[in-house]
Order: sequence, then C-alpha cells, then structure tokens
Amino acid sequence: MSNIDPALRKLDQALGSGRVLTDPDVLASYAVDESEVPPHLPDAVVRVREAREVADVMRICAEHSVPVTPRAGGTGRTGGAVPLAHGVVIAFEQMNRIKGIEEDDLIAVVEPGVITGAFHSAVEAVGLFYPPDPNSLASCALGGNVAENAGGPRALRYGSTRDYVLGLRVVTADGTELSVGKRTVKGVTGYDLTSLLVGSEGTLAITTEITFKLLPKPQAVVTMLVLLPDLASAGRSVTQVLRAGLLPRCMELLDEATLALVRPLSAVPIPQSAQALLLIELDGDEIALDAQLERAGAAVVAAGASEVLVARHAGERDKLWAARRELSRALRKSARFKLAEDVVVPRSRIPQLIDACRRISEQHKVQMPSYGHAGDGNIHVNFLWSDPSEEAAVHAAIEATFKAVIALGGTLSGEHGIGVLKAPYLPIEQAPELIALQERIKDLFDPKHILNPGKIFPAHVQRFHGAC
Amino acid sequence: MSNIDPALRKLDQALGSGRVLTDPDVLASYAVDESEVPPHLPDAVVRVREAREVADVMRICAEHSVPVTPRAGGTGRTGGAVPLAHGVVIAFEQMNRIKGIEEDDLIAVVEPGVITGAFHSAVEAVGLFYPPDPNSLASCALGGNVAENAGGPRALRYGSTRDYVLGLRVVTADGTELSVGKRTVKGVTGYDLTSLLVGSEGTLAITTEITFKLLPKPQAVVTMLVLLPDLASAGRSVTQVLRAGLLPRCMELLDEATLALVRPLSAVPIPQSAQALLLIELDGDEIALDAQLERAGAAVVAAGASEVLVARHAGERDKLWAARRELSRALRKSARFKLAEDVVVPRSRIPQLIDACRRISEQHKVQMPSYGHAGDGNIHVNFLWSDPSEEAAVHAAIEATFKAVIALGGTLSGEHGIGVLKAPYLPIEQAPELIALQERIKDLFDPKHILNPGKIFPAHVQRFHGAC
Repeated sequence: MSNIDPALRKLDQALGSGRVLTDPDVLASYAVDESEVPPHLPDAVVRVREAREVADVMRICAEHSVPVTPRAGGTGRTGGAVPLAHGVVIAFEQMNRIKGIEEDDLIAVVEPGVITGAFHSAVEAVGLFYPPDPNSLASCALGGNVAENAGGPRALRYGSTRDYVLGLRVVTADGTELSVGKRTVKGVTGYDLTSLLVGSEGTLAITTEITFKLLPKPQAVVTMLVLLPDLASAGRSVTQVLRAGLLPRCMELLDEATLALVRPLSAVPIPQSAQALLLIELDGDEIALDAQLERAGAAVVAAGASEVLVARHAGERDKLWAARRELSRALRKSARFKLAEDVVVPRSRIPQLIDACRRISEQHKVQMPSYGHAGDGNIHVNFLWSDPSEEAAVHAAIEATFKAVIALGGTLSGEHGIGVLKAPYLPIEQAPELIALQERIKDLFDPKHILNPGKIFPAHVQRFHGAC
Repeated sequence: MSNIDPALRKLDQALGSGRVLTDPDVLASYAVDESEVPPHLPDAVVRVREAREVADVMRICAEHSVPVTPRAGGTGRTGGAVPLAHGVVIAFEQMNRIKGIEEDDLIAVVEPGVITGAFHSAVEAVGLFYPPDPNSLASCALGGNVAENAGGPRALRYGSTRDYVLGLRVVTADGTELSVGKRTVKGVTGYDLTSLLVGSEGTLAITTEITFKLLPKPQAVVTMLVLLPDLASAGRSVTQVLRAGLLPRCMELLDEATLALVRPLSAVPIPQSAQALLLIELDGDEIALDAQLERAGAAVVAAGASEVLVARHAGERDKLWAARRELSRALRKSARFKLAEDVVVPRSRIPQLIDACRRISEQHKVQMPSYGHAGDGNIHVNFLWSDPSEEAAVHAAIEATFKAVIALGGTLSGEHGIGVLKAPYLPIEQAPELIALQERIKDLFDPKHILNPGKIFPAHVQRFHGAC
C-alpha cells in the first residue's frame, strides 16, 4: 500500500530541501481540526507558497496514489481537514495574500490562506463589504470557507460563501491547473463548475485562488436584543419581522436552556421570566434604520416580546452580543462532551423543531440546548453528556433529531458540511440515486480517490471506519 | 438510425391516445425559438402535464436512443430549445401551476411552464418579490429561465435565476425522478447539483419542479434618466454611483448609435447633444430613497451628466423606460439581419469594450450599436446588416468582439447561454481541459447524448452542423 516513501523523495526533489515536513510535532498539529474526529497523523505536510507547488504535490501524489488533504484554517466542525487516510497535508497558511481589491469592479482576488476576519478588515477599509461571517472568522481561512460553503449569522440577508465566489483557480486530482468561473457578476458560459466546487469539501479539486464579489459597505448597523416569555413568541417574532417587509442581516435565537447557561455571563440583565432571546440586526442607510427599527419593534411586541433593547454604536452592540458570543464556550464548559449539529428547517418550523428536540432530549435523557440563526432556520442543536457510557443514547438522539429535521423539510447541515461526522446520516436526507450520482461525480474528478479521502459519502468514510 | 417509430408507438401506449402530437403544423411551431437558429422539425411533441409523464417520455426515449429537447417558453436567444437532432420535444406550457407560495418561509414551488411575469404578479400580490426580470418576461417561462440562468436588468443588485433556485425536481436521462437541493436558504449537504443543473441548458436533466427563494418586496422604486455628453462620462457615472456606496437595482446604458435610433420614439426629449443615456433605478425603503437619489444625482453630475430626470410613480417611470423598451424592436427594424451578443466585461472596462467595438465596427464595416446592463458589465452588442454577402464580415466582427471581451477579463454570455450560436466561440473563453471536463460531466449525466443534443460544446454542435 505504501508508496509514501518514493513520493516524499520526489516531493523533496521537486520542492527543494526542507519543504516536506515530517517532524512528529508538525505532523501532530495537522492531525486534527476543530471537530470531534480523533487525530489522524499525516505522513508529511507541505506548506505551499504558490499554485505551481500545489500542482507539483498533486501530480506527484497522483503518480504514487498518495492521499492528499488540503487544509486552510483547520477550524472545520465535521472533520473535513483531518487526514483520515494519512498521506500528505497541503497547508495553505503561507498562501495568504490578498492579491487585489478592485474597487470599481467590486471584486477581490485572494489566496486560500487569507484569514476571513483579516479579509473583512481589508475590504471594509476601502468602503466595501464581504458578508459571510462564520463564527470562527478570527482564525478560519477563506479557502476553508469555500470548501465548506461557510455561512454565519449574516447569511439571512446576504447568503453564504458560494453567493460571493465568482471564479476559482484550482488544481485537479492529476495536478492540472484550471480556471473556472468568471470575474463578473453575470456569466452563463458552460456549466457552473464554480458552484459545484464550492462546498465540495476538498474532494473534487484544490483551490489556489478565489475571486470574490463584494458589496458596498452598509452605512449603519443597529442591534436589537429582544426578551421573550417563551419560544412560541420568538418563532412568531421571526415571521412577523419578515412579514413586515424587513430583511434583517441576522436574527439569532437562544432557547431556554442556553439562556440559563449564559444568564450569569450576559452584559445586560436577563430576567428569569425571559425564556427565549432574539438578537436582531438591521443594516442599511442610516436614515432608513430608524423607521425599520420601529417596524421591527412593533412586530416583536405584537408577537409577545417583554423587553426590547436597542444599540447603535459598536461598543453598545458588543454588549448585546456578549451573551451570544460566550455561548459556545459556556456550553463546552457545562459538560465533559459536546457535539453540535447545525441543522436547518424552513424558518416557520423552528418551534416544531425545538419541540421535537425537547421530546428527543427527554426520551434519550440527553441535554440538548439549542440556539442559532433563527432567521434562516439554521439551528445549532447541541448534545451534552459527561459519561462515555451515554454515547449510545447521544447517537440515538442525534439520529432522531436528523429524522425530525428531514420530516420538517429541512437539511442536515447549514454551514458545517458533512465531512466525517455527518456522513453516516447522509442517507436520511438523500435518495440512494442522488448519493450514487454524486459518487460518480467524485469518481470523474478524482478517479484514484486521493483527494481528501474518507469524506461526505458513507461508503467512503466507512473505508477508514476502524480508525475513526 | 431511426428508432423513432417504435418509440412513438410506446409513447402512445404509455401516455394515452392523442398525447403524442405529430401534426405538421404543431411540429413546425416547435421547430424554432427566438434565436436565429434555422428551424429543425421535431418528430413528435408531448405537452406534458405532470412529472411522471416526463419520466415516461425520457425512459422510453432512452430505451430507443431518441433525442429529447425540453422547451418551456421557447424565447431563448441562442437556440437552446431548437430540436437540432429532431426526436421528441417535451413542451411544458401545460405544466404551469404555481404549487405554493409559502409566505412565512419566503419560498415558492412552481412547475416549469409558469410564465415569469405571471409569477412576478403572484408573489407581489402577497408582498413578496422575485427579482430576475429577463426582457421576455411576458412570454418566457421559469423552466427556461432555470435552464439558461436568465438575468435581466435587476441582476445588478439582485443576481440571476440561479441565486433564487433552492431546489429542483428533475428527471434524468434514463427517466429517474430525483430531488436535488433544499427548501431552505442554507444547506451544505453534499455537492451543489442544483447550481450545476441551473444554466445547463437542458443538457444534463429535465426540470419538473422548482423551489424558489423569495424576498420581501421593496417598499418603493425610483427611476433616474441621465443624459450624458459622451460614453466616457457614462462609464464614470456607473463607477461613481457605486463608489457612493449605492447598489441600484439596475443601471442601463444606451450608446450613441442606439440613442440615434430611439430618439424619435422616446417619450421624453433627448437632445442631439446627449451621446449616451443611463437609466438608473433604486429601490428600498421610501424614506431612504430621497437621500440615495441625491447621492446618485451628485455622482452622475460630477461625472459629467448634462441632465437628470427623476420619476417615482409607475406611469412616469414607464415614460423614462419607453426608449429602452423600444430598443430591441427599433434595432430589428433598422436592418434586415440582426445578431445580438450579450457579452460581459468587468464594469470598469465598459468604455474600453465600447471603444473596441467602435474599432471592430469600422474595420469590418458592420454596424454595431450597443446597449445593456452597464451596472453589471453585461452589454448587448448588436450586429446589423442587410445583405447576405456581408455575413462573413459579421462573423469576423463577432469573433473579434469575443476576443476583445475575453482580453478585458469578460465572458461570452451574461444571460443568453451558449446554445448553438455561441458554441463555436467557447474555446475563446475556456481552456481545452475545462471544456473536456464539462464534456465528461455531460457524458456522466447523459451517456447516450439524448438530452438536448447539439448544444454548448463545439464538438456536439458540429455533429449537426450540416443541418444548421
């Protein structure tokens, strides 16, 4: 099986001395991402500096049938960057240049290693706006955002990463460099391979350059924190705000269980009577926001809100967001083990989803606090447990949750991808014919299955099952 | 070659008597679309009523290797609905139900035969908004919009059809019914086959149901008509408006040659001194539009505008649009033959494109008036001639234009698709490896090449070249 040694020798020759890293400490740091997938050591790591090197690595690995796992920020939540089949990790942290921001054309060209938050700052400095804002934006990188089609709270109004990718430079499984897509917003020449590659989790090709569409930066942002007596009134608030003709940049929900956790950490007092919380953020022209705030306020009060706080300036807005920002950490501290599933349902079904979660939680005796992007129906359902013996119950609860989600017209993942962790559940959502069709597309792009093996498809993940 | 007779007998049995139409008049009406592709008679037409019938037709045609051409409104501009290889046309005009508009979830589920304009009316009646607005919206249908990824003026702010397609029900080349995509805005489960199928011009699968994302309807719309002394100031106006942080729903440009044509038809006087015209439309909250108008007005005046007219109400706005609306017809009347190419360049390059067109026009002695969606760089370059002997010069001018477009970082088609007419030029834009990869995807979805044969790929079109 192991063609790794001759491959590494060839890589050494092609890239130059010291570029193929095999130091155990280095390998260990590329064995995990931010998911619960156990560590898998790569055989080698190459920190690429330009597209040609990616092509060299890919060509040599293809010749020797050595698996390749691309990695940008390594912040994925489903195991996408874990080198399940070992082999070579192509690491993009040194390919992190913003090659250009073309203000008149509202586009930017970047390398995959650019940190998302740094990109936000760079485009905002020239009055432009890149909306996708995954929670990990301080450490995740744009190449990973493209691989996973990352979202974030602002997806409600602005969509996810795919909506901003105009074109890609990629290296295919055999080492060919290819440009797909365009540099213009419109363009219908041929099949949309760009959209196919975005969200393909590194299993079809490796991105070496991204051309993003940008928007003018909104003039102003206001944040509303809404306290509600129960979840039903929170659900009504979401629909009433949209029915008022408003499209907020985000509407974030905290349920009763998550509120209980963050109540002590919140910068604003959250009374015991509040059993649900919404954070609603509106952006646009300063002059329009007052009227919009009024309409949004009226909508949530009519839906049953007991208290509405408004903040217009950055410092104040941060105070309202503090509870939401602490959530993931607070949840992690509250139990020894935690799994988070970022399911999506049509937004009108959120109350039914939360009801279903409550039933599942009681039935399987697993704590399941939920929060997330209520505006677009993307709820992060958390599973908390403290004793390894509870694991079977947790997995039964997860499967029951996924089944409830699909029954409500939803989907398994809003932004985390399938990776390793969700692959076993893919058949709950997708028909066998659809999975087979996608596997044939995988075979077409990567006939030797050397590109990020063991991801997305149940049969592919199972091949490494013993190890994960 | 001809398996058509046994196939038609089986279709008759499967669908019932009188459903497989072979009357010569009927066949003739399905032999063309609104492109310049010469008529190609199908052998039979089936006006399908439900998805199961599409699956039956496809299954039987696959068994007998009979080509199938799907057709919605038949308004395509590049020959997508012309049955180049004869065979069976699946016509969708009777599958035209709006199955549901789910207001709280901001989605609609429709059949492919729904007329785009009727869909606009239906969603706007409940306060919602479906932005794509191809010029043919009174007669084109949503299935065709999906097949071609149709755009329209509003694409500047709102994007094209693909940006609104959440999920599809399709029938594949072997007659399998398949659901792809989702009913929610977010969703990253598996590869994005939905985006791959949108814009694939009926060559990969046949759509039988579309789930669209909708938006809240903007409160108000205002239209500005801007007269400019020259094209350079029009180009500056476009960039200055965007630099002012505005994102209009559209910015439409008329060049000197098109202005000369429509001057006599315009409902507002256009002085001879005006050598370029921009129509800028802003939408949003009533209260914000006044301030936006002021900023847009200041931007175009600074860029050199000589006159700015503003209209807020439907009747007045129609007056400003009259000249733009008459354009296509006026152009058609001004010469015996006309070809229109909907090229796209990065918007900052529009002046360079128009300059290039002027040089090409002089060199090849072909009239080339240009107009279009300046905001997103999508310019309709027209080629007018009156004598068949000029055809070679016209084709040389078209090829030179495409080469100029690609050199400026643009793309061959913004919204019309490749179809038959643009296929010969595909290699100007795309590398051989990229075309080959797309052909392999076509082979994977449609191994017998029975789905809309002779479209997109030069080698596929050439097979029918004698006939077209």
